[in-house]
Amino acid sequence: MDIEDVIAEVLQRIVPTKEEENFVSTLMEEIKEKTEETIEELNLDAKPYFVGSLAKDTYLAGDHDVDLFIAFPLDTSLEELREKGLELGKVLGERLGKYEIAYAEHPYVRAEYKGIRVDIVPCYNVKNWKDVRTAVDRSILHTHWVLENIKGKNNEVRLLKRFLKGINAYGSEIYIRGFSGYLAEILIIEFGSFLNVLEKSDFMLRKKIIDPEDWMKRESEITMKTIKREVGEDKPLIVIDPVDPRRNVAANLSWERYGLFYFKSQEFLKEPSTEFFFPRKKIGNYLSALRSRKTHLITLTFNPPKLVDDILLPQVERTAKGIKRQLELEGFKVLGYDYGREFIFLEVDRLEREGIKVKRGPLYFTQHGKRFYEKNDIVWIEGKELASEKPISTFIVDVLEEILRKGQFSAGKNIKDAIVKGDILVDFVPKELSKDAYLFLSREKFRVK
Amino acid sequence: MDIEDVIAEVLQRIVPTKEEENFVSTLMEEIKEKTEETIEELNLDAKPYFVGSLAKDTYLAGDHDVDLFIAFPLDTSLEELREKGLELGKVLGERLGKYEIAYAEHPYVRAEYKGIRVDIVPCYNVKNWKDVRTAVDRSILHTHWVLENIKGKNNEVRLLKRFLKGINAYGSEIYIRGFSGYLAEILIIEFGSFLNVLEKSDFMLRKKIIDPEDWMKRESEITMKTIKREVGEDKPLIVIDPVDPRRNVAANLSWERYGLFYFKSQEFLKEPSTEFFFPRKKIGNYLSALRSRKTHLITLTFNPPKLVDDILLPQVERTAKGIKRQLELEGFKVLGYDYGREFIFLEVDRLEREGIKVKRGPLYFTQHGKRFYEKNDIVWIEGKELASEKPISTFIVDVLEEILRKGQFSAGKNIKDAIVKGDILVDFVPKELSKDAYLFLSREKFRVK
Repeated sequence: MDIEDVIAEVLQRIVPTKEEENFVSTLMEEIKEKTEETIEELNLDAKPYFVGSLAKDTYLAGDHDVDLFIAFPLDTSLEELREKGLELGKVLGERLGKYEIAYAEHPYVRAEYKGIRVDIVPCYNVKNWKDVRTAVDRSILHTHWVLENIKGKNNEVRLLKRFLKGINAYGSEIYIRGFSGYLAEILIIEFGSFLNVLEKSDFMLRKKIIDPEDWMKRESEITMKTIKREVGEDKPLIVIDPVDPRRNVAANLSWERYGLFYFKSQEFLKEPSTEFFFPRKKIGNYLSALRSRKTHLITLTFNPPKLVDDILLPQVERTAKGIKRQLELEGFKVLGYDYGREFIFLEVDRLEREGIKVKRGPLYFTQHGKRFYEKNDIVWIEGKELASEKPISTFIVDVLEEILRKGQFSAGKNIKDAIVKGDILVDFVPKELSKDAYLFLSREKFRVK
Repeated sequence: MDIEDVIAEVLQRIVPTKEEENFVSTLMEEIKEKTEETIEELNLDAKPYFVGSLAKDTYLAGDHDVDLFIAFPLDTSLEELREKGLELGKVLGERLGKYEIAYAEHPYVRAEYKGIRVDIVPCYNVKNWKDVRTAVDRSILHTHWVLENIKGKNNEVRLLKRFLKGINAYGSEIYIRGFSGYLAEILIIEFGSFLNVLEKSDFMLRKKIIDPEDWMKRESEITMKTIKREVGEDKPLIVIDPVDPRRNVAANLSWERYGLFYFKSQEFLKEPSTEFFFPRKKIGNYLSALRSRKTHLITLTFNPPKLVDDILLPQVERTAKGIKRQLELEGFKVLGYDYGREFIFLEVDRLEREGIKVKRGPLYFTQHGKRFYEKNDIVWIEGKELASEKPISTFIVDVLEEILRKGQFSAGKNIKDAIVKGDILVDFVPKELSKDAYLFLSREKFRVK
């Protein structure tokens, strides 16, 4: 299959039909109307904006999440914005059908209308980057910029997004750290087409800096500061936000996700296939993976506190690293770790260690030597030094329980208690984690070959 | 029991009876006569000397090895000395009863007479240290010096020797590296009595240098050179040989053996007991030691080449260290090792390791990264780097056999072949090694508490 045929076949599956387009535009019309009604009813000074891929017409067929931003004037206090925004969300949510409260930087309403998710997010009505006050304020500017610059390349964006999804490099969430939709849009606008972007996977990494709106000329000091900061943090890519020179659009992109894009781009260009866009999921069995690797899987499960992923997951990671380090000090080799909101995986080399621990002591003819001799029951000489040994527990669960009980591990502060109270599972995971366990053990997550 | 009673009881057991003294002096008379006859018969220009503890009257009751030195004039060539000495040894050996050839710096004859071992060793008839040409030449001078200086303290020497034997610190052989008989004699002469020597166990170590014949004054340059050399090699004690300023009598004394003396001296002075001189041997079972330690014992057995201990044992040690290092590179922890002429012990933490080995690769976006990607079957990304894994054998014997087969370990040159051809035993030793295995696993060898 040559590359044009692959692309044609993929496009057929990802470009919305006329019918779907009509459904979406009707949907947005109706939501807009209801929103304006609600704003009037509540007598608010606010303006609704659609942002996200629906607003930019870069959504994939069948993917209809609505991002509805309620923009308040800049002179609104942050408190008022939160309060009024939430109030509006609730009333509008009621009117749309059902809703719930979700939490990000601020609480917001997640409603559902005609089976479509509608996020109702309050923000400031900023006109340019100098006005930006909350993390979401830029979205309206982003939408505006993309609509102005995309010039009919919407389907190229769709191809890139689908490709990134297929190779597992899409999504800017903290637990993914892949390409965001906005980043995909910028890359298409910058390089002109889906295939061009793929061909630039090596070039981009070397050039490092993409600056579509030439902020370097317009605001060189601020832009340089941004670049310096991001270089200091060793980011794979620096994409100066076309609407804000202080921001790297690729700030959350990890080296691993970029790496998937790097290898899969080159592979695709050499041997194109629809597989890259729509991979056949082949999830194996984690138990057979364990058997063939002759390693063991320790799983900690716990009830995490109710915190957003951005706050919680880095804490879980810190904890996983902390426990890994302690286990290694205790003589178990940790071949890898992974984690989620409610679990930590540790792949270890064995379940039982030796039953004694040798303690190296001081020079035997010193005062310290004398004390060491007096303090320990079994003492012998090695070279000029004393040594001693004591029995230790051998089973990894006993060792881990002691580490947890004594709190001898570095951990995220909001999560330590939950982990200490949690469970330890050996070579077995609850059914809902079996896929994660397989992906972890097989190293599928960041596999490039 | 107070200290005088202990000493009295010990003396009773170690001082030869009148009867034994008579037996020994008759024995020496007879051997001397036969030697002189043989020298005459062979028409040799040589003189017999008795050296060692029998000659110095510092032997322990029942311990009657005879050291018979045949001293040749200084103008004899080394070759002639070897040849004539061996010839004489054989004829004399025949005359005494049975004999065999033994090997040290030179071959010599080990004969037996009336059930007593008689070593017949050729040497030069040196009058002082400047004439010394072979390692054994000093013995006649040593005997002479001790006889001149011991001043009736022969039993004090006997006590010290028996004490050192009891605490396992006696013997200057390479596989022991403890106190020699001559060193014990010097210490008694220097400090005056058995108890004085014990009381000086700490003082001696701090003073470091003992120089009974004041060579520092008489030959300061040479003596300083000796001291510098021995300090450089970090010896626990430097005892300038009363008959040769170039030599440290304690050169072969190890820190471990001195440590046994150090702790046991202090313990004895605090709580005297005959136990120190005649310990009840309590050899435990190595299998129960293994069970309680929850470790494993790997034993390599082999047929060593016919070399003296001084040559062979350091090579075995080097090999043991080399194999230990390789096993640790392969992921097995080696808690300790020990060795003898025909075996190497390795205490390890486990018999099975994990079944995969992770290989860390280069940065993924480099030429090296490209090659790594092409060369390996399973490749994934960790951070900015590639990683790969391959299956490995898990059983320690398979791993060890591969190390041996590939010769991937540093070893003594005369011994590598023997070890590669030898056997590997797991958690089991031949009966003749079971005591060694126990002493090793229990760390009894250099236990001080």
